[in-house]
Amino acid sequence: MLRTVETLVELIAKKRDGGRLSDDQIARLIRALGTGELADYQMSALCMAIFFRGMDDAETVALTRAMLHSGDVLDLSSVPGIKVDKHSTGGVGDKVSLCLAPLVAACGVPVPMVSGRGLGHTGGTLDKLEAIPGFNVSLDTDAFARIVRDIGACMIGQTGRIAPADKRIYALRDVTATVESIPLIVASILSKKLAEGIDALVLDVKVGRGAFMKTERDARALAEALVRVGKAAGKRVVALLTDMSTVLGRTVGNAIETREAIEVLHGGGPDDLVECTLALGAEMLVLGDAASSVEEAREKLRDAISSGRGARVFERMIEAQGGDPAVVEDPRCLPRAPETVLVPSDADGFVAAIDPLEIGLAAVAMGAGRTRADQKVDHAVGIEILAPRGAGVRRGEPLACLHVRSAAAAEAVADRVQSAFRVSSAPEASPPLLLGRIA
Amino acid sequence: MLRTVETLVELIAKKRDGGRLSDDQIARLIRALGTGELADYQMSALCMAIFFRGMDDAETVALTRAMLHSGDVLDLSSVPGIKVDKHSTGGVGDKVSLCLAPLVAACGVPVPMVSGRGLGHTGGTLDKLEAIPGFNVSLDTDAFARIVRDIGACMIGQTGRIAPADKRIYALRDVTATVESIPLIVASILSKKLAEGIDALVLDVKVGRGAFMKTERDARALAEALVRVGKAAGKRVVALLTDMSTVLGRTVGNAIETREAIEVLHGGGPDDLVECTLALGAEMLVLGDAASSVEEAREKLRDAISSGRGARVFERMIEAQGGDPAVVEDPRCLPRAPETVLVPSDADGFVAAIDPLEIGLAAVAMGAGRTRADQKVDHAVGIEILAPRGAGVRRGEPLACLHVRSAAAAEAVADRVQSAFRVSSAPEASPPLLLGRIA
Repeated sequence: MLRTVETLVELIAKKRDGGRLSDDQIARLIRALGTGELADYQMSALCMAIFFRGMDDAETVALTRAMLHSGDVLDLSSVPGIKVDKHSTGGVGDKVSLCLAPLVAACGVPVPMVSGRGLGHTGGTLDKLEAIPGFNVSLDTDAFARIVRDIGACMIGQTGRIAPADKRIYALRDVTATVESIPLIVASILSKKLAEGIDALVLDVKVGRGAFMKTERDARALAEALVRVGKAAGKRVVALLTDMSTVLGRTVGNAIETREAIEVLHGGGPDDLVECTLALGAEMLVLGDAASSVEEAREKLRDAISSGRGARVFERMIEAQGGDPAVVEDPRCLPRAPETVLVPSDADGFVAAIDPLEIGLAAVAMGAGRTRADQKVDHAVGIEILAPRGAGVRRGEPLACLHVRSAAAAEAVADRVQSAFRVSSAPEASPPLLLGRIA
Repeated sequence: MLRTVETLVELIAKKRDGGRLSDDQIARLIRALGTGELADYQMSALCMAIFFRGMDDAETVALTRAMLHSGDVLDLSSVPGIKVDKHSTGGVGDKVSLCLAPLVAACGVPVPMVSGRGLGHTGGTLDKLEAIPGFNVSLDTDAFARIVRDIGACMIGQTGRIAPADKRIYALRDVTATVESIPLIVASILSKKLAEGIDALVLDVKVGRGAFMKTERDARALAEALVRVGKAAGKRVVALLTDMSTVLGRTVGNAIETREAIEVLHGGGPDDLVECTLALGAEMLVLGDAASSVEEAREKLRDAISSGRGARVFERMIEAQGGDPAVVEDPRCLPRAPETVLVPSDADGFVAAIDPLEIGLAAVAMGAGRTRADQKVDHAVGIEILAPRGAGVRRGEPLACLHVRSAAAAEAVADRVQSAFRVSSAPEASPPLLLGRIA
C-alpha cells in the first residue's frame, strides 16, 4: 500500500523535475485517479507540475488515451461513413453547432456531437438545444448511435460514463489555477471527442477577449497542439482560428441564439455566423470525403441551405430527440421573454467594438448563463445586438435589445451592456472572421 | 460565495505566475484552509506553485506567522529568562535533544521543547523519550509551562492545537511531491517552533545521505533561509550545519539511543555525539545570555556534565513528566530486546563509511521506526554500531550488534546492515562533524 502511494508521488516528482512520463506511467496515474488511490490533492499538484513543465506530444497522446479509456468509448461502427464532429473552444454568441450539424449531415457526413453546457461568460450548445420545448440531450448511447445512423446528426451531453477522468480533472483544474496548460486542454478536449467514436474532427479555436485564448499566438499554439495530438491519436483533424473579439452573430442567450441558428438554416442570419458555419462545415465535408475541396464543400452546404435539406435534418433530429420540430418553421414556438428593453447609444458615431466578455457576463447576470455548474438557466432571456460592429448610430438610437423577465432586470444590466459598446467618431476596420487554418 | 472561491484561485494563479503574495493574502489563504474554504486540492496546487516560484523572505515570514497563528501560541511569559530551543532537520542516530535540553537547562537557560516522532529513516525524540517507562509527552500547555519554569526543561509532542495548518500542509506536501521547497520547509519548522513561545532558536541543519538535505549547498541555503526568516520574525536564531554522512553516535533505535544520551550526561558517550551536543548547547547558552562566548558556554556545559547537574535536571524532568527517573542512574531500567545478534565484517580493513540511510531503513524494518504515521514502534529494538567510521576490522569481527525480538528478525536485516558498512583496505579521512555556522 505504502509502496504504491510512494510510486505515485515519485511520478508527480518526476514531472515536477522536468521528466518525461511514459505511456504506462500516465495510464497508471489516470487509473489510480479512478480508483481513488491518487487523491484529488495529488492530481491537482500534478496538474500544476504539468502547467510548469509541459508535456510532449507523446505524453499528451498518452494522457488523452488514458482519459478517453477512463469511461465508455462509443461504438459507432454501425453507422456507415466517416463520422465527423466539430468542437469550439467556446465564445460568446457561438451557436454554430445548431445550424452546422444539420447542414453537414444533409451533405451526407454523419455528425455525432457531444456538447457541453455554458459556464461563465461562454454559452453552451446544450442550453441552446434545451430552449427547444421537449428536447432531450440525455440519450443513451444506443439511441445516440441510432439517430446518427438514421438522421445523420445527433446532439447530446457528455454522460457520466464518457471520459469521467476528464470531468474530474477539469473540475479540479478550474479551482486550482491549472486551466491554462496546453497539454491539459488538449487532452481534455480530445479525450471527450475521441470517446464519441468519431473518425475526424474540425476544431474552432476562438481568439480574443470573448475566448479562452486571448491572443492569436496562444490560440495558434493550442490549435497546433490539438491537430498534432489528434493526428497522433489516429484521427483526421483540422483547426480553424476564428475571431472572438466581438460577439458572433447578433444574439447572446439561449432561445434567441437557437432562433438565429434556425435563420441560417433558412438562408438568413448574420454574415459572420453564416461564414463561420460554412468555413467549419466545408472542412467537415472534406474530412468526411463528401467533397474534394473546400470550394466544392461550400457549394454543397449552400445547396443544403437553399434546398431546405439542412432545415429538414434539424427537424427530424429535434423530433427524434423528443423536441418540438415546429420551432424550425415557426421560431415563435421557442420561449420568449415577457419584456424587451432597448439600450440606447450615448454618442453619435460608429460601433468600433463590442466587448464580448462584458456582453457574456451581462447575459449571465440576466440569468441566461451560469456561474456555477449546478445553476439553472433561463432560456428566454438574452441580449440582441441591434448595432453590430461597423454600424453607424446616433445618440439615443438603440445598440441592443434586452430580452428580460422584467424592466427591473433590464435596469440591472443596461449600463453594463451600453459600456460594452465602443462608439467612435469614424468607422474602424474589423479583423476578419477567419484568422488561420492548421491542418 | 463564488466570488470568494474565485479570489482564492486568483491568489494561486498569482503565485503560479511568479507574483508576490501580500501578508494579507497569505493570511487569508491559511485562514481559508482552516475553514475549509480553501480545499486540500487547492492547497497542494499552491504548494506546487510555491515549489516552482519560491517565496521571498517577507512572504515566508507571513506564511510562518499565518501558520503559527492557525492554532494556540504558548505563553511562557511566566517563565523568567530567554527561552531557547533547538531544532534538528532530522538524522539517523540523532538523540542530541535528550542530553542537550537538560544540560542547557542546568546552565540556567529554560528549554521549552516541542518535538516530533520518527518517520521513514529518521528517528524522533518523542519515541526515544517514550522508551522511558511512564514518560508522558502529551502534557497540556499549563503543565508544560510549569515544568519549564520549575525544572528548566520540558519535552512534549506537537499537540493538535499547535500550528494545525502546518500539520495539514505537511501531510499534503508529503504525498504531492512538494516537500523540497525551502520557503515551505522554513515556514513549517519556524511556525511550530515559534508557537512554543520561545525567544531564540538554534537549528541543527544536517547534511548528507542520512539527512533531508543531501548536499552542503542545499543545506546551507536552507540554514540561511531559516536564520533570515527567523530573525525577520523577531527571534534570535543561529544555525549549525552538521555532518550526516554517517550515523550520529553508535546507536539507532529508541531505548538504546536514550541510553547513549544518558551516557553523555554522565561524561561518557561517543565523541561525535558529545561534540554535537556541546556545539549546539554552546550556541543556546550564548543566545540565552548565559555565556558571553561559545568557549565560555562549552566550559559551562562541561561543568554541568562533570557536576552531574545535567543528569539531575533530566531526572527531575522525567519525574515531572510521569516517567521513571531511575533510568538515569540505571539504564537497565530501559526496555531491552531479548536477543542480540552480531553482524560480522566480510573483509579485513577499515570502516570507511556507514550508510546512515541504509542503517535507518534497516532499523525501521526491525520495528524501531515507522513508515506510516499511525504505526507503533518497538522501543527495545535497534542497531548498535560496534565498528564506527575509521575503526580497523578483521573479517568475521563484528561491525554491529542487532538488538532484536528474535534471531529470525535479525536474519531479515543482517545483510542490509552489513552492506551499509564499506570496509576499505586503508583508512580514509572523514569529514568534520561541524560543517558551518550561520548567524
